[in-house]
Amino acid sequence: MQNWIDRAKAIPVLNSEWRQKARTRLNIQTRPAGSLGVLEDTIERLVAIQKTDKPEIKKKRILIFAADHGVEEEKVSLYPKSVTQSMVLNFLNGGATINALARQVGAEVQVIDVGVDADFENETRLIYAKIRRGTRNMVKEPAMTWPELEQALTIGWSLAEKAKKDGVDLLGLGEMGIANTTSASAVIAALMHAPVEQVTGRGTGLDDRALEHKIDVIEQAMELHAPFLGDIFSILQRMGGYEIAAMTGAILGAVHYEIPVVIDGWIVAASALVCTRLNLNILDYLFFAHQSEELGHRVVLEELNIHPLLNLRMRLGEGSAAALAMPVLEAGLRIYREVATFEEAKVAQAASSDQITA
Amino acid sequence: MQNWIDRAKAIPVLNSEWRQKARTRLNIQTRPAGSLGVLEDTIERLVAIQKTDKPEIKKKRILIFAADHGVEEEKVSLYPKSVTQSMVLNFLNGGATINALARQVGAEVQVIDVGVDADFENETRLIYAKIRRGTRNMVKEPAMTWPELEQALTIGWSLAEKAKKDGVDLLGLGEMGIANTTSASAVIAALMHAPVEQVTGRGTGLDDRALEHKIDVIEQAMELHAPFLGDIFSILQRMGGYEIAAMTGAILGAVHYEIPVVIDGWIVAASALVCTRLNLNILDYLFFAHQSEELGHRVVLEELNIHPLLNLRMRLGEGSAAALAMPVLEAGLRIYREVATFEEAKVAQAASSDQITA
Repeated sequence: MQNWIDRAKAIPVLNSEWRQKARTRLNIQTRPAGSLGVLEDTIERLVAIQKTDKPEIKKKRILIFAADHGVEEEKVSLYPKSVTQSMVLNFLNGGATINALARQVGAEVQVIDVGVDADFENETRLIYAKIRRGTRNMVKEPAMTWPELEQALTIGWSLAEKAKKDGVDLLGLGEMGIANTTSASAVIAALMHAPVEQVTGRGTGLDDRALEHKIDVIEQAMELHAPFLGDIFSILQRMGGYEIAAMTGAILGAVHYEIPVVIDGWIVAASALVCTRLNLNILDYLFFAHQSEELGHRVVLEELNIHPLLNLRMRLGEGSAAALAMPVLEAGLRIYREVATFEEAKVAQAASSDQITA
Repeated sequence: MQNWIDRAKAIPVLNSEWRQKARTRLNIQTRPAGSLGVLEDTIERLVAIQKTDKPEIKKKRILIFAADHGVEEEKVSLYPKSVTQSMVLNFLNGGATINALARQVGAEVQVIDVGVDADFENETRLIYAKIRRGTRNMVKEPAMTWPELEQALTIGWSLAEKAKKDGVDLLGLGEMGIANTTSASAVIAALMHAPVEQVTGRGTGLDDRALEHKIDVIEQAMELHAPFLGDIFSILQRMGGYEIAAMTGAILGAVHYEIPVVIDGWIVAASALVCTRLNLNILDYLFFAHQSEELGHRVVLEELNIHPLLNLRMRLGEGSAAALAMPVLEAGLRIYREVATFEEAKVAQAASSDQITA
């Protein structure tokens, strides 16, 4: 994994000159300083990534990585495994929520099979990159082999590279995989040294008893793999999913090629957390779409000191929140490009508090 | 004011048949039940307002009401009163943040002078409806007369009527007026019987000492008008602003004509609170764009049991958050129209938790 560690370590801090330039311009635009809240940091980072006075998002793409999970056999989801396959077909037919949202915001959708436990035949709209028909059951053995992990990371990186070639300047990540909240919780618990119950939620809607069972399953896996959990990539290899690993590669690739990435929800947060553990500089290229209803999401966002763009209490995945957040980023850049300065508009600037209370 | 009370009381509960129909359709679309979070309630209400199987927003308009405030002479803002005038010109020239946002989301902007302390000459793009050059200082006397309040309400109602005639199906409200957070805080404190310090914030950026002064000013006004604050319209007449009153009329008109209204921030919340105090049915037609950084905004939203669409820590006003929230509403309706059902997409539905843990 040394090549991946090297790639991650090579990511420099975000261009501070452009970031400062952006800050300066925001402060002279006609509105009270700081009044755009967290949108200001968002704009600054996008400007520092694009390094231009006229930052603009011209081509948006959402990658949906689909895979099955061996741990599904432990009955941790309300949905049968077959739903991964049928939702992939739904994505390809344009019938899912993410398709409606992508059409609304003008983003392309690419669906990638990295490990669905089904065969898709003659689906010209699907990107075939199946590693295996689902991971192994992490409660009994490592979810994937090292070569499989390497393969998953490479798939993600290649798709980021392709996005760069295609002129994509905003990448959204999403996923589909029955039981993948279980895998994500295990990865996040291990990376954060957090108690499992703190980062394990109800997924698609478990009740208390089923949630307890899910926590128990994750704890079993963590016990089995305990000797290896000090190593970031071992965590991914032993308890991750093919889609979580592929999205990790996609983030590393996108950041390498200087494409800002919109992080969807809980599962993608696991990939993002892996990347930031490798190099915290990566965080500046990531835009967290929302705080989902999945129990541990708030904990992870707080750990990374992130105020997400949306908080609609969603818990859907498939890139849905990433799509919804994209217009916010575009609006931010529009403000940056078009709002007049105090000088241009001949608007008086603020006094200091001292001046008015003197 | 009886005619306004009657108009407000006449608003019926939202069509429950269409609301139920919307709920049913959301539940059979291909995603876990409830997974769109607060967007689901948003969609349901929009469907119940439009009463169609193919709900869609085709024409969006943002009304920005501008007015000055007599209480400005108490030094409650960092900005001089002249900024109301210069920002109006900035709006007309398309140079303000709301203009950039409106262009981004495809909404029209109309700017209405209901009480700016300046003369605008030959501004063909401005809607002239000036009641007076600013309200009176509420610390010393009622901010407006009863006929002025009537006039302000009528202006708002007429613009909602005009919007209906023009085919507008989503109305955003915004405002501009130096010192208007002071007026809004007074109105809200009186309506909620809340301690002034709980609902008074830093406006455009006051420090602790200046904030204390602002609280003191509001308390003085409340003491002066105390005998009259049991009556909703007296609160508006004595401590409101022309823009706050006009927006109250605009909300009543829009709801009467069944146009959903996006509520911007703190100032518009004062108008919305007046309306819901007249008739709580009105709340179902209102879509709260965000929770602003203004201190009392959370308190008001909690009082109304609202989870706002955005939480970007903004504190700008001028309709900026309303504009940013509009695409979220449009996305919701797109989901409603286009997402396939479980049956159409041949996706298996969820088991119950009992079934999987049995």
